Amino acid sequence: MAQDIKFADIQIGDTASLSKTIAEHDVYTFAGITGDFNPVHINEQFAKDTMFQGRIAHGMLTAGFISAVLGTTLPGINTIYLGQELSFKAPVRMGDTITATVEVIEKNEAKHRLVLKTIVTTQTGVVVVDGKAFVMKK
Amino acid sequence: MAQDIKFADIQIGDTASLSKTIAEHDVYTFAGITGDFNPVHINEQFAKDTMFQGRIAHGMLTAGFISAVLGTTLPGINTIYLGQELSFKAPVRMGDTITATVEVIEKNEAKHRLVLKTIVTTQTGVVVVDGKAFVMKK
Amino acid sequence: MAQDIKFADIQIGDTASLSKTIAEHDVYTFAGITGDFNPVHINEQFAKDTMFQGRIAHGMLTAGFISAVLGTTLPGINTIYLGQELSFKAPVRMGDTITATVEVIEKNEAKHRLVLKTIVTTQTGVVVVDGKAFVMKK
Amino acid sequence: MAQDIKFADIQIGDTASLSKTIAEHDVYTFAGITGDFNPVHINEQFAKDTMFQGRIAHGMLTAGFISAVLGTTLPGINTIYLGQELSFKAPVRMGDTITATVEVIEKNEAKHRLVLKTIVTTQTGVVVVDGKAFVMKK
Repeated sequence: MAQDIKFADIQIGDTASLSKTIAEHDVYTFAGITGDFNPVHINEQFAKDTMFQGRIAHGMLTAGFISAVLGTTLPGINTIYLGQELSFKAPVRMGDTITATVEVIEKNEAKHRLVLKTIVTTQTGVVVVDGKAFVMKK
Repeated sequence: MAQDIKFADIQIGDTASLSKTIAEHDVYTFAGITGDFNPVHINEQFAKDTMFQGRIAHGMLTAGFISAVLGTTLPGINTIYLGQELSFKAPVRMGDTITATVEVIEKNEAKHRLVLKTIVTTQTGVVVVDGKAFVMKK
Repeated sequence: MAQDIKFADIQIGDTASLSKTIAEHDVYTFAGITGDFNPVHINEQFAKDTMFQGRIAHGMLTAGFISAVLGTTLPGINTIYLGQELSFKAPVRMGDTITATVEVIEKNEAKHRLVLKTIVTTQTGVVVVDGKAFVMKK
Repeated sequence: MAQDIKFADIQIGDTASLSKTIAEHDVYTFAGITGDFNPVHINEQFAKDTMFQGRIAHGMLTAGFISAVLGTTLPGINTIYLGQELSFKAPVRMGDTITATVEVIEKNEAKHRLVLKTIVTTQTGVVVVDGKAFVMKK
């Protein structure tokens, strides 16, 4: 499933993506492993009275799908994750289907490094996360 | 667990942290919710022959503990997560006890915004993740 | 939960069953441990436009309940699972209550082996899986 | 991550595979969603005195990786799973790294159906599951 692309075959403009409908299961499981029990994620009574009007997914869970695309598809296996810049633009609600897309925007041949534009959108096209990933590909 | 601090009471230099021993359970669960089946995380036979010499945790799982400190402790409840810069410096292995620490380094009174230095270290003091968080506190 | 029946006491025609309402939790958890992120299971936007008109459970998750009946009830503890034939007849949706039933149809006294008819149905009686299990009972 | 291959492009002899180191987490999670609490899977005190000399993974969990390869890689998205024959040949223990491999062995052009040989092996090459999958590819 996870694929290995040769560094030489990676072109600026290459893209890959992953989509998932975010379930209460995903949010609660992420809360469970990180201990992020911020009530906006796991307390509906609290969350309904916030600006979000209900529970929302953790931004770092959403960012996890960027990592999944990088590590399994583009650049795939043998990618060393060096860094990530993230801007959280809008909330993800349970039931939203999100798509994480990465696009190669810079390639350093000498150092085998890439910069990728990383964006996560919902089913209605709202950008929920954007940023850049910095990776080395063996 | 989650606490609410008044914006006025937050000082530059304030810190908070969270520690957890990272279990195979945590790595496998994170792989399961994000679909990140990069073999360096879930295939010991593959991972032992990489530069890491064994399975390692997902960087974004490690970053999740930064989010947990921000959302539950400092600045706590009613924090709006605006952005995060992450540098992945060293691997986290199953069994490592990591500590995520945040420290307030900038405070914008007018906009109710904060910048926090964010760092994750292992039990031996190795920095595995560093960066900055950008938040608004209601 | 798990019971141990003597081989000598097992009769052709004996049956046992197990029922569960299949939750989004079950489907997402199964996707997580197997890596089966086929979008028909975890992407509602994709799945609604397929012949299934929405997300469905993994067939092998449904088959897991057959295994559960065999291993815990009939023939129960000390069953060696030798083989299974499965036909996937209809989809299982989140919220469906399925019942896995096994029935002894052949008994080989000398080899301590059994063949069981295995069938899984929904709350409306639709057969979703049928087949045969081949086991040895100590 | 999940890929879509055109039926016309699928050739007899095509193969795909997926590997994972099976953790206690995987076995316990599968037990939890199916209710298969056969003690050979979740009771070390019981299992150490059986022919397996310790806890083993559920055969149907191992089979789940066959399903994952079929649904995400070959034939990938838009595969309809019609049936599966499974022979359980040897136990999988926690810590084993298993590889599920599928290979196209029959192709029915008129009906858009395929038969695939399906085999799961351990890191030492032991065959733990073999059988055949029957699928339709849209």
